[in-house]
Amino acid sequence: MGKVRVHMMMSLDGYAAGPNQGPDKPFGDNVENFLDWAFKLKSLREMLGMEGGETNPSDTVMRETASNLGATVMGRNMFGGGPGPWPQPAWNGWWGDNPPYHTPVFVLTHHPREPLTMQGGTRFFFVTDGAEAALEQAKEAAGDKDVRIGGGANVVNQYLRIGAVDEIELHIVPIIIGGGARLFEGLEDARPRLEVIRTVATPEVTHVKYRILK
Amino acid sequence: MGKVRVHMMMSLDGYAAGPNQGPDKPFGDNVENFLDWAFKLKSLREMLGMEGGETNPSDTVMRETASNLGATVMGRNMFGGGPGPWPQPAWNGWWGDNPPYHTPVFVLTHHPREPLTMQGGTRFFFVTDGAEAALEQAKEAAGDKDVRIGGGANVVNQYLRIGAVDEIELHIVPIIIGGGARLFEGLEDARPRLEVIRTVATPEVTHVKYRILK
Repeated sequence: MGKVRVHMMMSLDGYAAGPNQGPDKPFGDNVENFLDWAFKLKSLREMLGMEGGETNPSDTVMRETASNLGATVMGRNMFGGGPGPWPQPAWNGWWGDNPPYHTPVFVLTHHPREPLTMQGGTRFFFVTDGAEAALEQAKEAAGDKDVRIGGGANVVNQYLRIGAVDEIELHIVPIIIGGGARLFEGLEDARPRLEVIRTVATPEVTHVKYRILK
Repeated sequence: MGKVRVHMMMSLDGYAAGPNQGPDKPFGDNVENFLDWAFKLKSLREMLGMEGGETNPSDTVMRETASNLGATVMGRNMFGGGPGPWPQPAWNGWWGDNPPYHTPVFVLTHHPREPLTMQGGTRFFFVTDGAEAALEQAKEAAGDKDVRIGGGANVVNQYLRIGAVDEIELHIVPIIIGGGARLFEGLEDARPRLEVIRTVATPEVTHVKYRILK
């Protein structure tokens, strides 16, 4: 069995996204410099079909993040297309015709929809019977490989709450966002216990990977 | 002129202390393993008049933290003695007859009190005319040395809000506290801009020091 992994960018005040997220700004307001370090990396640029980029310690971390994944689970907000019933014309995600997943992706939603097959091996499945069911389907699809809980923050918090996560890696970016979607919320009565696996620090971002003790 | 510095322990979910702080538990509930790394260090043990301790990268960080300080500012809650008018018999702080400050310490309070002289050069002054006045007095007392904003979280947030802090160092401990006194709260309309100065990582704690850009 593979692991259930989380890899999230987090501001110093704990946010994974700012306030007022929307189609024109998937990370919301107040996120100046939140993404810059990532878009410089060769690994991320390759993943998004862009040229160039730096190879540096963060690049190595991001390559590792993307390796050995057999499936991803994400929330409806991360898939996008606004809340509520699916819009017409169909919203097929933020990522164009060839999304950077190349595996099955299970999207948590209250609104049923037929599976959506994209280029490059990404297939989106829309799961309406809850977080645990979605994770079970993702594990089955992943086989021996790992499942990534892709986000957003609320979805990660939900899986942390039920003790379903094996590893969490934070890319801690030195900015204060001040509001929005916060990681580690709602865990007062279900506090995960953590152990540091590895730290990679650069002036732009601190990558810390934790094992969650069971 | 010296710098205005902050050095705070912070949980992964942003807390400097848990819920239900009180005389028997200055850091509140849910803080298992929050302090362990610090109490192992030779520098901290020396400061508290205790024997032994490890010398390791965290120890070096803590020695640097304690050096070149000319004065400290702290909140009434950090000084202790409960909220409201000063109790009888007098509460003289958590730290015994010889507190680990050895400089003037300015305590923010609504309740006037005569200065309190302790052993080893620590003198507590009780400031009733606000945070800016306390910082001015601390700067004057510190001369060319630095002023430390000692805490707690609310006091640090107050000084961050008015742009009075030059450096902030976080000792990020891999625990989830889930509630209590949170750093970086109330800054949505006064977000500090930060730059990493230095990172020291161990399995027990991640020390990251930031310069606050003006």
